[in-house]
Amino acid sequence: MKRHIISILVDNQAGVLNRVCGLFSRRGYNIETLSVGVTEDPAVSRITVQVDCDDSTADQIIKQVDKLVDVIRVVELHENHGVFRELALIKVKAQPKQRSEIASMVDIYRANIIDVASETITIEITGKPSKIEAFEALMEPYGIKEVVRTGLTGLCRGNNPIKKERDI
Amino acid sequence: MKRHIISILVDNQAGVLNRVCGLFSRRGYNIETLSVGVTEDPAVSRITVQVDCDDSTADQIIKQVDKLVDVIRVVELHENHGVFRELALIKVKAQPKQRSEIASMVDIYRANIIDVASETITIEITGKPSKIEAFEALMEPYGIKEVVRTGLTGLCRGNNPIKKERDI
Repeated sequence: MKRHIISILVDNQAGVLNRVCGLFSRRGYNIETLSVGVTEDPAVSRITVQVDCDDSTADQIIKQVDKLVDVIRVVELHENHGVFRELALIKVKAQPKQRSEIASMVDIYRANIIDVASETITIEITGKPSKIEAFEALMEPYGIKEVVRTGLTGLCRGNNPIKKERDI
Repeated sequence: MKRHIISILVDNQAGVLNRVCGLFSRRGYNIETLSVGVTEDPAVSRITVQVDCDDSTADQIIKQVDKLVDVIRVVELHENHGVFRELALIKVKAQPKQRSEIASMVDIYRANIIDVASETITIEITGKPSKIEAFEALMEPYGIKEVVRTGLTGLCRGNNPIKKERDI
């Protein structure tokens, strides 16, 4: 079992996300995280999926996704050749006198405070999952009220684009 | 047609994402962006969906999602009562002599350069969609090679958590 990050370029059509999720679900592959957003071309969306499975299963998934309608291209992003990031919003309990203590840790992690209420602080942090988890562990003693994470997203390092085949 | 952000707390089970996507697809609601990630409780995931529709359709969607198996709670996050963020990775063409020019704009937008190759720079930027789009427009003249965006994610402002009902 290894973490695999699969990047899928799709036509921005209703139903395509459903077909991709359906394939994973039917075959019993559990999606750990998934994110879908627009790309530089508004007609094209990019789905990034994290699945924890062995290498041969990942190859299977890629071949099957590639056959789906509206899928333009599918590639695996390898840890060594890609840059990966995840965004998390973390709401932490914080009494007024604890705020500066929390703020100093936010600075060290290059995170940002995006909301302060009478008893809570909401923090935005971007990074690899291990960084986000380390920061969460640091906030644990204050009391974490809510966490939302986008799931991993990534690009190949350097000049290699994940593009429509006809563009390469 | 208005942007609606729907936050769905689900049991972290295989197939739940498929049921949620299936509902949107069957009813013909087009998902603009979607992200799924773990929460403070590993048994619970949070799905954030952006749909562009009128208010009554959004109410319909919420009611229908609420009936799905493994859905713990579903709420709409309102622009005025929530904090929203999106993460984008943008790969821009950059000759060595253009790097410092790009780097200064990256600083202004509080973005980060996460990879530099001989002819490209990869930038990580977090913010509201309008900020990300403004930055993309600024990078357009250099030549955008690739963009990946996570889709919007958000939390309610202040102390109100989106939790399992039994916790409140």
